[in-house]
Amino acid sequence: MSTVFKELLPDEKANELLAIGKIETLKKGDYFVRAGATPKKIGFIKKGLFRYVYINSLGKQFTKGIILENQFIASYSAMISNEPSFFFIEALEDSEVFSIPYNKWLSLVDADPFWMRFLLKLVEKGFITKEKRERELLLLNAETRYVNFLKEYPSIEYRIHQTIVASYLGIQPESLSRIRKKIAT
Amino acid sequence: MSTVFKELLPDEKANELLAIGKIETLKKGDYFVRAGATPKKIGFIKKGLFRYVYINSLGKQFTKGIILENQFIASYSAMISNEPSFFFIEALEDSEVFSIPYNKWLSLVDADPFWMRFLLKLVEKGFITKEKRERELLLLNAETRYVNFLKEYPSIEYRIHQTIVASYLGIQPESLSRIRKKIAT
Repeated sequence: MSTVFKELLPDEKANELLAIGKIETLKKGDYFVRAGATPKKIGFIKKGLFRYVYINSLGKQFTKGIILENQFIASYSAMISNEPSFFFIEALEDSEVFSIPYNKWLSLVDADPFWMRFLLKLVEKGFITKEKRERELLLLNAETRYVNFLKEYPSIEYRIHQTIVASYLGIQPESLSRIRKKIAT
Repeated sequence: MSTVFKELLPDEKANELLAIGKIETLKKGDYFVRAGATPKKIGFIKKGLFRYVYINSLGKQFTKGIILENQFIASYSAMISNEPSFFFIEALEDSEVFSIPYNKWLSLVDADPFWMRFLLKLVEKGFITKEKRERELLLLNAETRYVNFLKEYPSIEYRIHQTIVASYLGIQPESLSRIRKKIAT
């Protein structure tokens, strides 16, 4: 377990995180966080793949984010506001997550400026990701978004269903099929 | 000038900010930050009204945010990444902004955990705002978005052009006219 945060943190700091959390095992289709429930934990993906997904009143799904190994996952706005999450965090594969209770996480942040800076950097990274996604949805056409997607998530095509890719790109599955055929020729 | 941050900060801390920035006066239509330029400053709106606006290669405008008095403005992702801004920060009225150079701001943050926490809260607030907007665009119909807009920005209708409201709501001006007529009846 000591290797979970190897790339990310010095050993001493990694141990502080390891002391307050535990590994959670999820099957494909399980939720790390459910829409409607107030989230109380942050996860770090040790193995597997997740998405953030909104489901509207008609059952239509909107994939707002896809998150790979060695990334944090949280329904962060809801968690810090102590309100129910609007979206699900769903395992797209059998996964292992290092799960940290938010109250213990906050104790670290309050006690040590190192963790406050670490958190600031995480939130800034999330902010940059969201702004990039917003911009691409507004300014780029579907084909360019798909090409960028393939660059950003190499070989992920083989791990998730095309309907999820389409929902991430904000297009219909039929449009994605057309784009894929066009690019392949 | 000492009243700029009155609601937001204790006097002693407000003075630290006041010592590193200055008032900038902008005419309606002026830009606080230009797309294509690397942003180097944070603003706090003392008087007036601003928007964040993307302009695509065809000249079409997308208003991604409207910001009122007593709020901070920045092209934050670009600034912290030291990259050109993708959007403009445009004054929608004659405005006064307290403008803080980013390098001086960073010196405060590095020197004093108070400012790091303050920045964290600001970025978290921005994150929450972005997530709410994303959700509303994905899950709510245009009429509901307009009704929410009127609640969130009371009486702002009289301060900005309807084409900007439509561009903020992600709809055509004609659709906004229809919605307004429907609601008025």
